[in-house]
Amino acid sequence: MNEQASAIHEWIQKHEAKGIRMLKRFVQEASTQGNEKNVQAMVVEKLRQLGLEIDIWEPKIRDLKKHEAFVTARSSFRDSPNVVGVWKGSGGGRSLILNGHIDVVPEGDVKLWEDDPFSGKVKDGRLYGRGSTDMKGGNVAMILALEALISLDISLKGDVIFQSVIEEESGGAGTLACIERGYRADAAIIPEPTNMKIFPKQQGSMWFRVVVHGMSAHGGTRYEGVSAIEKAMKVVQHLQEFEKVRNARITDPLYQSIPIPLPINIGKISGGSWPSSVPDEVTIEGRIGVGPHETLTQVREETATWLQKLSEIDSWFESHPTQLEWFGAHWLPSQMNIEHDLVTILTAQFRGVLGKDPILEASPWGTDGGLLTNVGDTPTIVFGPGQTEMAHFPNEYIELKKVFEAAEILALTIVEWCGQSK
Amino acid sequence: MNEQASAIHEWIQKHEAKGIRMLKRFVQEASTQGNEKNVQAMVVEKLRQLGLEIDIWEPKIRDLKKHEAFVTARSSFRDSPNVVGVWKGSGGGRSLILNGHIDVVPEGDVKLWEDDPFSGKVKDGRLYGRGSTDMKGGNVAMILALEALISLDISLKGDVIFQSVIEEESGGAGTLACIERGYRADAAIIPEPTNMKIFPKQQGSMWFRVVVHGMSAHGGTRYEGVSAIEKAMKVVQHLQEFEKVRNARITDPLYQSIPIPLPINIGKISGGSWPSSVPDEVTIEGRIGVGPHETLTQVREETATWLQKLSEIDSWFESHPTQLEWFGAHWLPSQMNIEHDLVTILTAQFRGVLGKDPILEASPWGTDGGLLTNVGDTPTIVFGPGQTEMAHFPNEYIELKKVFEAAEILALTIVEWCGQSK
Repeated sequence: MNEQASAIHEWIQKHEAKGIRMLKRFVQEASTQGNEKNVQAMVVEKLRQLGLEIDIWEPKIRDLKKHEAFVTARSSFRDSPNVVGVWKGSGGGRSLILNGHIDVVPEGDVKLWEDDPFSGKVKDGRLYGRGSTDMKGGNVAMILALEALISLDISLKGDVIFQSVIEEESGGAGTLACIERGYRADAAIIPEPTNMKIFPKQQGSMWFRVVVHGMSAHGGTRYEGVSAIEKAMKVVQHLQEFEKVRNARITDPLYQSIPIPLPINIGKISGGSWPSSVPDEVTIEGRIGVGPHETLTQVREETATWLQKLSEIDSWFESHPTQLEWFGAHWLPSQMNIEHDLVTILTAQFRGVLGKDPILEASPWGTDGGLLTNVGDTPTIVFGPGQTEMAHFPNEYIELKKVFEAAEILALTIVEWCGQSK
Repeated sequence: MNEQASAIHEWIQKHEAKGIRMLKRFVQEASTQGNEKNVQAMVVEKLRQLGLEIDIWEPKIRDLKKHEAFVTARSSFRDSPNVVGVWKGSGGGRSLILNGHIDVVPEGDVKLWEDDPFSGKVKDGRLYGRGSTDMKGGNVAMILALEALISLDISLKGDVIFQSVIEEESGGAGTLACIERGYRADAAIIPEPTNMKIFPKQQGSMWFRVVVHGMSAHGGTRYEGVSAIEKAMKVVQHLQEFEKVRNARITDPLYQSIPIPLPINIGKISGGSWPSSVPDEVTIEGRIGVGPHETLTQVREETATWLQKLSEIDSWFESHPTQLEWFGAHWLPSQMNIEHDLVTILTAQFRGVLGKDPILEASPWGTDGGLLTNVGDTPTIVFGPGQTEMAHFPNEYIELKKVFEAAEILALTIVEWCGQSK
């Protein structure tokens, strides 16, 4: 480890308490959709202290809706600002976007939490609360990395563009607004909770709805009707088969240890209106994973074609085809060549700090990396502290040690990628 | 055909237009639950014209709730009167209850109706509207039968107790209130829509709810969770198997032409909360048919035992058993010996009027006959105009010809059963 690396390591070690306080305050601000403004004010205050050029704005739907990738259920982003802080380089280096979302998913059933969902409580090296893992821990790691470099008076050639964005959990309008505003870079890192794995590729996803038809009858003579529930079971089985077919073709070694690289999840089912009637309609809703090698359009078309085959299994579907709809949010897949220089640098710094090789995988979920890569032409790696298994769950927590390790690896990667000017 | 029978036949023929007007007015009064009072006023007016002793009262929940068979979702029956009209016999004959419910199920989706659901429109010998078949057609047939006998100055030995009851569609509180008020008889006829078949036995039914558990996970790593939808599919299959087992033991010849004598209908399914999450709970609701030879308690116990066997199929259910609940309404099964004199009389009169043998079957649904038989000790036959297939459906109608045929058969049956005094 060279002298500068040691200095960074020591700086971060010395400022752990400060980092924990910051994360605690971030988590205690329940920044669910529409409530991001208070925690963004804290981020702004921090970036101001660091001396970054600050840009704060509320994205406008009229500017975003021209993008095919834009999705939102909101009518406005009023009071939900994006925050960007730019650390200008001296020139001649590669620029880097550090992107993290500040929105968190709702706490869900409070009864399932052992503590207040937004307690920020620290216990046994873990910090608890909604958003701790997904992904305020990652955001704090980025801020600490920048603070270490700036405090140690390290200057860079390339620009670092720190983005604290809204709306990632609802389809990425915040990151899309950054791209739309002109923020692009030679590469990007998103410290979503990868459990310190490096994800050069990310699974995209889309939501689908399939409406299955039956024919009503009185339950006492149910044989005179056709149960949409029984037909829906066939549709579910057919989609399970589709998942098998889609995954059988995947050969990318990044997927080798993932049981189902591109899952089809049936997340919701509902149908029928009366216990005593044969149900005449069932709706199933789910999520289909989109491979880094695929486009959303390809997957939409393949799904439609596959569902048409239902009539080969059961002639009922010939006269009563299912209805397929794509609704709600979608997340673009993302891929970066694993030979890319940022992968090489990040891998080396990981090894330097932790003394072991990182795991390179393809992520089982989408991030704003899909937008950065596909819309913003900015190749993106996802790498961060925190475990996916914690995200969106009661009693979410993050291991603090990982936050500081990530901060150190990020700081070193920034220097190496952007180039040091003094 | 004897002279009196001819007179009855002619009287009914002559008064068809009057009968149609009555049915039309009955149907035009949308007597859904809570809205029975206007049509009951018409019934009262009719019974007054016939000179019957009239009893009108709003059932009281406090009087009914001591009965195990009582079910209601209402907090009071205010403005929902029961109506009974008694035609006292001269004595020495057998008494007969003529029971019909005046409540109708809601019209459902109005867009599926070709006409106003309460039009009462007559076209091609059919009268259309919600409640025409289920069961205002049957009610009019009873009233016409009584009117014919009274108009022709025929006197009876036994009492005829005409009951126009509320709440049949919601579990029978109206008929239970009649029993509670003391109305019992040597036998009863309910002219529910049997398509002129004679049902000495009726299937009872109960509503059940099964909650199926899974384990949540993010849809992108769905293999880390357990889908409650997939588990619910196993539960549905297990219940389908249960239906087979239960029906395999039925040997009663009255069921010989019924495809599934005691169906298990899965009427509703719902579960999951988010397309991108593995669903951790699914609820299914349905109706189980209860055989005339069974009690509700027996069927509840057998169902619970059967569901426990799920753990033999899938060990998941061992650690995560389903939850079974009996909720909402239930209808008691009913049975009458097919050698019973009322069956013999009704069969003979049917043959006399229509020149062919009636079909004797067990009904695929429950009626208030279960209450009359089991709680009121009044053996009950269900026999009436109208087709089951029409009940509860859009564009419900009744064939008017059948209403008059039923009226004639009922009139002759009343005379034969109650005995003529002059």
